[in-house]
Amino acid sequence: MSFITDDFLLSTPAARRLYHEYAAAEPILDYHCHLPPRDIAENRMFANLYEIWLEGDHYKWRAMRANGVDESYCTGDAPPRDKFLAWARTVPCTLRNPLYHWTHLELKRYFGIDDLLDEKTAPRIWDEANALLATDDLRTQGILRSFGVVALCTTDDPTDTPWTSQGTGFPTNVFPAFRPDKALNVRNPEAFRAWIDRLEAAADTTIGNFSSFLDAIRKRHDHFHSLGARLSDHGINHCFAEPCSEAEAAAIFDQARDGRAASPEDHARYASFMMLFFGHLDAEKGWTKQLHLGAYRNASTRMLERAGSDIGFDSMGDWPQINALGAYLDRLSRENALPKMILYNVNPRDNYPLASMCGNFQIQFGSAWWFLDQKEGMELQINALSNCGLLSRFIGMLTDSRSFMSYPRHEYFRRVLCNLLGRDIENGELPSDYELVGGMVRNICYSNALNYLNLPIQNSSTAMRPSVLKSSPVAF
Amino acid sequence: MSFITDDFLLSTPAARRLYHEYAAAEPILDYHCHLPPRDIAENRMFANLYEIWLEGDHYKWRAMRANGVDESYCTGDAPPRDKFLAWARTVPCTLRNPLYHWTHLELKRYFGIDDLLDEKTAPRIWDEANALLATDDLRTQGILRSFGVVALCTTDDPTDTPWTSQGTGFPTNVFPAFRPDKALNVRNPEAFRAWIDRLEAAADTTIGNFSSFLDAIRKRHDHFHSLGARLSDHGINHCFAEPCSEAEAAAIFDQARDGRAASPEDHARYASFMMLFFGHLDAEKGWTKQLHLGAYRNASTRMLERAGSDIGFDSMGDWPQINALGAYLDRLSRENALPKMILYNVNPRDNYPLASMCGNFQIQFGSAWWFLDQKEGMELQINALSNCGLLSRFIGMLTDSRSFMSYPRHEYFRRVLCNLLGRDIENGELPSDYELVGGMVRNICYSNALNYLNLPIQNSSTAMRPSVLKSSPVAF
Amino acid sequence: MSFITDDFLLSTPAARRLYHEYAAAEPILDYHCHLPPRDIAENRMFANLYEIWLEGDHYKWRAMRANGVDESYCTGDAPPRDKFLAWARTVPCTLRNPLYHWTHLELKRYFGIDDLLDEKTAPRIWDEANALLATDDLRTQGILRSFGVVALCTTDDPTDTPWTSQGTGFPTNVFPAFRPDKALNVRNPEAFRAWIDRLEAAADTTIGNFSSFLDAIRKRHDHFHSLGARLSDHGINHCFAEPCSEAEAAAIFDQARDGRAASPEDHARYASFMMLFFGHLDAEKGWTKQLHLGAYRNASTRMLERAGSDIGFDSMGDWPQINALGAYLDRLSRENALPKMILYNVNPRDNYPLASMCGNFQIQFGSAWWFLDQKEGMELQINALSNCGLLSRFIGMLTDSRSFMSYPRHEYFRRVLCNLLGRDIENGELPSDYELVGGMVRNICYSNALNYLNLPIQNSSTAMRPSVLKSSPVAF
Repeated sequence: MSFITDDFLLSTPAARRLYHEYAAAEPILDYHCHLPPRDIAENRMFANLYEIWLEGDHYKWRAMRANGVDESYCTGDAPPRDKFLAWARTVPCTLRNPLYHWTHLELKRYFGIDDLLDEKTAPRIWDEANALLATDDLRTQGILRSFGVVALCTTDDPTDTPWTSQGTGFPTNVFPAFRPDKALNVRNPEAFRAWIDRLEAAADTTIGNFSSFLDAIRKRHDHFHSLGARLSDHGINHCFAEPCSEAEAAAIFDQARDGRAASPEDHARYASFMMLFFGHLDAEKGWTKQLHLGAYRNASTRMLERAGSDIGFDSMGDWPQINALGAYLDRLSRENALPKMILYNVNPRDNYPLASMCGNFQIQFGSAWWFLDQKEGMELQINALSNCGLLSRFIGMLTDSRSFMSYPRHEYFRRVLCNLLGRDIENGELPSDYELVGGMVRNICYSNALNYLNLPIQNSSTAMRPSVLKSSPVAF
Repeated sequence: MSFITDDFLLSTPAARRLYHEYAAAEPILDYHCHLPPRDIAENRMFANLYEIWLEGDHYKWRAMRANGVDESYCTGDAPPRDKFLAWARTVPCTLRNPLYHWTHLELKRYFGIDDLLDEKTAPRIWDEANALLATDDLRTQGILRSFGVVALCTTDDPTDTPWTSQGTGFPTNVFPAFRPDKALNVRNPEAFRAWIDRLEAAADTTIGNFSSFLDAIRKRHDHFHSLGARLSDHGINHCFAEPCSEAEAAAIFDQARDGRAASPEDHARYASFMMLFFGHLDAEKGWTKQLHLGAYRNASTRMLERAGSDIGFDSMGDWPQINALGAYLDRLSRENALPKMILYNVNPRDNYPLASMCGNFQIQFGSAWWFLDQKEGMELQINALSNCGLLSRFIGMLTDSRSFMSYPRHEYFRRVLCNLLGRDIENGELPSDYELVGGMVRNICYSNALNYLNLPIQNSSTAMRPSVLKSSPVAF
Repeated sequence: MSFITDDFLLSTPAARRLYHEYAAAEPILDYHCHLPPRDIAENRMFANLYEIWLEGDHYKWRAMRANGVDESYCTGDAPPRDKFLAWARTVPCTLRNPLYHWTHLELKRYFGIDDLLDEKTAPRIWDEANALLATDDLRTQGILRSFGVVALCTTDDPTDTPWTSQGTGFPTNVFPAFRPDKALNVRNPEAFRAWIDRLEAAADTTIGNFSSFLDAIRKRHDHFHSLGARLSDHGINHCFAEPCSEAEAAAIFDQARDGRAASPEDHARYASFMMLFFGHLDAEKGWTKQLHLGAYRNASTRMLERAGSDIGFDSMGDWPQINALGAYLDRLSRENALPKMILYNVNPRDNYPLASMCGNFQIQFGSAWWFLDQKEGMELQINALSNCGLLSRFIGMLTDSRSFMSYPRHEYFRRVLCNLLGRDIENGELPSDYELVGGMVRNICYSNALNYLNLPIQNSSTAMRPSVLKSSPVAF
């Protein structure tokens, strides 16, 4: 019998009804991901399961390392099939980790595979999947179409050359998003200067001083806007809310550009200035600002030096968040420059304080992020939001993924959501009114994000519905 | 069918038995609320549902704002009925927020209304409820009698003229409680001086120096005691435990009175001195001190300036709590001046550390507060207390409310409590001994608070039992 | 009917199958406890239930104090039987506290007693239990044999004379563990100097300077290793990661030895140096280092002065943990000196950040500790580990106890684990593959710890199986 049944995660009749009748058919608006725009533009075909599934997947690498697998099978140079086999051997050891669910949900939805992945089933699954990857349906554009992805937003540095689907007639709308983290990098003068050089080139301007630096950033922000960008994003340990005049920020900027690293205190002041600047940029154009708060990154210096960032050596920080966040939001509010905003936290202890802070400024408490992107984490996020704010206004799920195999995460989220709501209906904690509760489900799945973000979506998006490739649990 | 059934929130037979046979009939001792004493003294009649239900309810305002409702319908000057309609339109959007449960429980218990409140049902509910509000049963004293409120404690500034029911023959005992937060206000000299002036008048004394300031506070504490007060209350971000002599505190006091705001460090030292002083006051008279820890208040400066405090722009702080709290309790203990005490936290991450700290000094871990005053929050509090201390000694629920419509919160708490205990019985985690478990339920509902707080309750309180107005689920 | 049934805590058929068929028969490897080695070596017989059950049990004392019991019945000099009666009167007030479960599980497994302990049943239980305590089965070695304890590790100061079972032919392997907390004690020169004197004697060396101090510690570490020790342990508020050269550490050491207490800053630097030193010691010999993080100890100075430490006046701290912990682990990793390691936290808010940090360095996130050693606490730990790492690699439970009556804690943990996994199987969140899930259960119960810790276990440990004394729920 299949592990991924039609009613996977749906433990009550009410949950099943909500999911199948209200959630499943909604399109996807994946407003934050890390897909490579080039792969979409070029309609990439994947040579094998390694390329589409393991390449760059730091979740899997962490699990493999915890299982004693050598680094050569993670970021190293083992052959693709051997890496896949090492992963397959690890899968049975991931019971209760979200990877176990993701793995089998992905095998099912992309390839119609029901087998549990392990050492024995691995060779056949490798062959079967690879054969299907050679078909159009599993090229990048085919995947997006099949999952009903109306729109997605990539994550781009201001110096990147972002790709937009605008004008291409491509059914999935693809927009860049603006992530200027490197603009804060005054503690690392070498990298900072190189980035300013790239910014000069991208903005086609000369950056002679701090003022022209800000102008160049604004120029890129304008350009992203012209390509349909409506979201920015910042990955920071915590907010910054130190007093800092433009002259002071300029002095710190000049020093860093001259090769002198900013002190932690100067970095905090400079970052405070810049984050206000970015807030104004977004507010002026009606964008939505995303803050990803609290990740503890590059914990292992050895592995950072050996293999770089974003390879699975990150975890949760425990910095205080609230005072600086509150001061930042208040300052923007006083300056009439508070954009729409989404707060994400990676440490679950910040769920409730952040959810309650959002209510002070009518901003969004974002979906469970990273290590929290799993059933318990989602339930904690949904409960905190429900109790401190209005779940019905929630803009819902995003993949945040680097992989085209991650689209079932939306399905996963919808099942978790419907399971919670269904249980509440069965318990008498919600009225047994399916139009009311089901309508909320539909809004959280798609419409709330559509209305909130105001992306310049083209084509008949509302007619677009998912038609999942294989073994789809519902007929649409 | 009614949404609020007899067995609302009671998911097992054991839970239903515990609630109906043990919890429901217990009287109420509402030892901490913010009801206006004048409304009780004058037996206020409410002109309409807006007056009794929306006026001053920052919970509802937050939800309305999150739903996009204009401020004129919250703290603004829209007509009462329009405000009610705006609220009614918001109610269906509060699914899973405690407001959804509170709303329908309150409509049911006060007015016998079973309809779900929304735009369509609003006009009829407005009319029906308003008609009933014109009856004696729904004047303030009628409400307190109907809900079996044996006693309640209001929250009063030392400079207020508190009202007590003592000597009135009024069936519900009303006592003031002593909340001297403004005595710490040395960072705001203008407000501080104004408060000292009011204190002089209230205490009928001249405050020439710090020593006479302390005397005046003590005089008010004595006066409150004579009116039956047995509880004090402090709303603070976190405890203070800096060394500070009386001479140092006096110097900071003098400066503030002279118009110079204390530095954060001086404020912390001054507050440390004063909190010890307050501890001694309470210990000497056998009072119970309440600490409400960790609220992040007035997050929006714009709204504070526009409409004042306590209007829904507060949330959860994330200050460290333990070191200063522990030092404060230890210092009082060493000085033989540790009063009975109740700790409340608003950030759920502090549940376990606070519950465990209480066990070091045999003080109370208080009911789930504010944003935590909902099913999940109550369960977290009850579980932390159960695991770190003795649930059986818990003094239970209070409304903490500004509204006479909040008395069903006690029922709500009792249902949540019985649901947890009933589930434990069904699971075999508690013995199926109803005298044992039911006796604990009764104690938590009423007797523990009665015995712990030692309020000078008059009249035959034990004969008093609730006789809820409408559609009461149990016959008493 | 018995409260402790065969299926206690096992709420689904799958849970029951996992527990009875996979978990129950696994031997015990109790790799961290505080049992007195002398009691094992001398095969102590206990005169009565007080001696084996109450003497030294700070959990019970805390509950008794919270119940209003006088200190003379806790740490004081009341007669043993009176102390037991005072405890018996408290037991019915501990409903929902883990003590309620532990108490009845222990009475059942050691004495076959099914009665609920209270004032009425106490006298008979006292007599029955005392009679059984006079038999060989309930002497210390009999207990260890009956519970299938293949090995246990005590907790020993470097200056202790540790006992090992090596060479004794004793069926339970007993090893010391190395806990050098007192080596950090530079803030208390008097105690520090006394400890150095004892260290000189134990290491049979002269400690003339810091270098010979380190040598003496290393000598003791070597000696512990020769006795079979493979674990060290540190009880610290939080990690230390300040820069500190050996010369600087030596200067702080010299000052303390000369009678001048180190400042908090110097203590932090000295502790940083020492913890690196200890890391190297463990890494060189393949030991496993345990960090017990975040306990707030000796909260009541009055009780500390009156009755000493470890008597129930400790609770949870809320120090930041992550930055210093991450820096400590990274530093050891860069120095090729990262030992195997187990992190324990006492504040549940640290579960997720610690579990995720472990994944950066492939170390263990340890079992729920102290106040968290209960059903909810275990579930939180297991869930955090499952979601952030590999539950299948978890080395599982330990008693951490000072009492020979605590061996049913392993059973308790196993029931909680199987209950979670069984629920997941019933919900379809885990595959209904009992060899797969049951195999993981077995590994967590015993084999993972056996393989991870690499203790020099003698005798045919794998043949050893528990044969619980009375009313065992399963036939082995």
